[in-house]
Amino acid sequence: MTPAPPPVIALLTDFGLADTYVGQMKGVILSIAPTAQIIDLTHAVTAQQVVEGAFLLERALPYLPEGSVIVAVVDPGVGTARRAIALKRGPHRFVAPDNGLLTPVLASGRVEACVAIGNDDYLLPQRSSTFHGRDLFSPAAAHLAAGIPIEKLGNALEPESCMQLDMPGPARLNNGAAWRGAILFADHYGNLITSIEAATASPAEEWQIEAAGHRLPLSATYGDVEAGKPLAYVGSFGTVEIAIRNGSARERLKLEPGASVILSRRGV
Amino acid sequence: MTPAPPPVIALLTDFGLADTYVGQMKGVILSIAPTAQIIDLTHAVTAQQVVEGAFLLERALPYLPEGSVIVAVVDPGVGTARRAIALKRGPHRFVAPDNGLLTPVLASGRVEACVAIGNDDYLLPQRSSTFHGRDLFSPAAAHLAAGIPIEKLGNALEPESCMQLDMPGPARLNNGAAWRGAILFADHYGNLITSIEAATASPAEEWQIEAAGHRLPLSATYGDVEAGKPLAYVGSFGTVEIAIRNGSARERLKLEPGASVILSRRGV
Amino acid sequence: MTPAPPPVIALLTDFGLADTYVGQMKGVILSIAPTAQIIDLTHAVTAQQVVEGAFLLERALPYLPEGSVIVAVVDPGVGTARRAIALKRGPHRFVAPDNGLLTPVLASGRVEACVAIGNDDYLLPQRSSTFHGRDLFSPAAAHLAAGIPIEKLGNALEPESCMQLDMPGPARLNNGAAWRGAILFADHYGNLITSIEAATASPAEEWQIEAAGHRLPLSATYGDVEAGKPLAYVGSFGTVEIAIRNGSARERLKLEPGASVILSRRGV
Repeated sequence: MTPAPPPVIALLTDFGLADTYVGQMKGVILSIAPTAQIIDLTHAVTAQQVVEGAFLLERALPYLPEGSVIVAVVDPGVGTARRAIALKRGPHRFVAPDNGLLTPVLASGRVEACVAIGNDDYLLPQRSSTFHGRDLFSPAAAHLAAGIPIEKLGNALEPESCMQLDMPGPARLNNGAAWRGAILFADHYGNLITSIEAATASPAEEWQIEAAGHRLPLSATYGDVEAGKPLAYVGSFGTVEIAIRNGSARERLKLEPGASVILSRRGV
Repeated sequence: MTPAPPPVIALLTDFGLADTYVGQMKGVILSIAPTAQIIDLTHAVTAQQVVEGAFLLERALPYLPEGSVIVAVVDPGVGTARRAIALKRGPHRFVAPDNGLLTPVLASGRVEACVAIGNDDYLLPQRSSTFHGRDLFSPAAAHLAAGIPIEKLGNALEPESCMQLDMPGPARLNNGAAWRGAILFADHYGNLITSIEAATASPAEEWQIEAAGHRLPLSATYGDVEAGKPLAYVGSFGTVEIAIRNGSARERLKLEPGASVILSRRGV
Repeated sequence: MTPAPPPVIALLTDFGLADTYVGQMKGVILSIAPTAQIIDLTHAVTAQQVVEGAFLLERALPYLPEGSVIVAVVDPGVGTARRAIALKRGPHRFVAPDNGLLTPVLASGRVEACVAIGNDDYLLPQRSSTFHGRDLFSPAAAHLAAGIPIEKLGNALEPESCMQLDMPGPARLNNGAAWRGAILFADHYGNLITSIEAATASPAEEWQIEAAGHRLPLSATYGDVEAGKPLAYVGSFGTVEIAIRNGSARERLKLEPGASVILSRRGV
């Protein structure tokens, strides 16, 4: 008989790696679920940017193992009356503050269980008012990973009662001949990730992007343009990106998060 | 019969994550203790700041699993005659340079075993003079995690013979009506962590903090002040912190590590 | 009977830790090889600097457990026609783009198996043109770690057909009385790592380094000079380094990567 695989807990926070915050969370998790495999999705969400965290979380989900428990903490309201929630949807469970961070999960309409985390049996006995990532979300997630049913964590909630935020999707223009989207953030390479979904820009050979005075046909790959030239393409997050081949679009194109980009049909 | 949980090794260094230093340590550890769970407490201790490392280590200990082996390396004297030591105290074992990094452990007076690491059987056969984190501390810790008794690592030492440093605690003023403490460091959010313990500032509603020309009553939570305003509170390290709600106190208040802060009774 | 130790997968990329790229890779890996121990060698290779990645990879290999699978991705040509390859040499297997990143492995002449990764059974069903680290290299490595023979990944290649780059070794001057090397990069401390091997500079007491107007005898340890003074020594990567004791040589000596350094016999 093959032993069950170790449970997976994935972390997404704005805690950074400069302090011991994430290390303390891992200590709490392994105290409860000693065989857990912990994945750092990222700890570099821009401080307190809940929508950015929600986007990054949603886009990473398809790559997480079935059965994963996701701990998402971007929590400017820690210590206030905002609720802490746990959800189950499909192969994943989630713990997070009830501040919109789980909007893509809630908006899917397929939440199977939803509770307000509150059962002291599954939380640290002493809880700070500043670090629920360690004192509440980590132990709750570890107990889920170790096998308790989600209903044990607290009272059932209607998923509709949980906070949802406006996610930055593209807006339709000209009866579908064009769409307006926005720059969401720049990645490590300076590539500019937009809110325009791959599906909206399909088939790629019929569309172009306008941004910062450039009109860029959608390319299939970085190799379609020369080094130093800008290009647009469907990127690793499943949305349109703007890049400079072998360079930084953030530095060269001066487009900040929130800046408008237009997707339009070529030759129109 | 349940198998024993995997051993835990926690790392705290000033090596950063830009190089392969930490990765090399993990390779050495897993070569010896292949099932170990490795926790990165932090690798961002300010370079060669032993006291900062000692503070961060002490504050993280309550959150580590019982049985953890802690590898602490902030080691400006690497390659000189400074000793390498291993300690056992309560549920944890520690390996570190004998330079004060384990001061809080030594100062507790509850060290149960203390040795000078020196048994070549448990170290890498070739040792550089620059990277004992990889060549000496990692293999020693991995052998402890894999089950050898601490006494095997080298000759017994008197704990009193090990170096202790002055840790930055608060100083009593005015017969206990006030205390002088210091800013220790700023965290990822720009929150300023002070040396004033929660116990000194208890009950919180009777105390205030004076720093940088502000007089701040101790708050229970960030939500007690408006966005953009300064506040003081007992933070995640169990000491008083100064923050700007939804902002960076480091940037706004211009308080550097070492700057003085006064805790006094309100209305006095 | 002792169970087999968990397989080890080591990652070396230029993806950084600011995004979820590395987290997504780990999700893919643990979906296929749920017990794998994952080592982050580094994700901070300078963006698209293949030679730097090759150097860091080679220098870390001696510290990885036997049986490790190394995923190396510094891949400016992702999405173009460049091949993806898998190699076996000694106790390690490797997956990487065929762009020279595995030069030290190939140059050793001891490659035992070499294939062009192409078998869809072992890759993600949907593959982006921008992120083969997640869609191709991670699943291929995880399947290797989980036990498939390397030959299953694709068609056999002649190792000689794979790309090799010029690695920065030292050049002999004056019939061996001196060698010219180069600064490769600065580490987290600002220490300057050169391309001059320990073996070339042996025995250390007979050699000196000339760089930035300084003539530095090779020291055994940082302790050989006073705080604030420059020194040269054989460092953690097995090559000569230049440092400022308790300071940053990068800041003080203004030597950039590529700058020339001369190793010569003392007193000549």
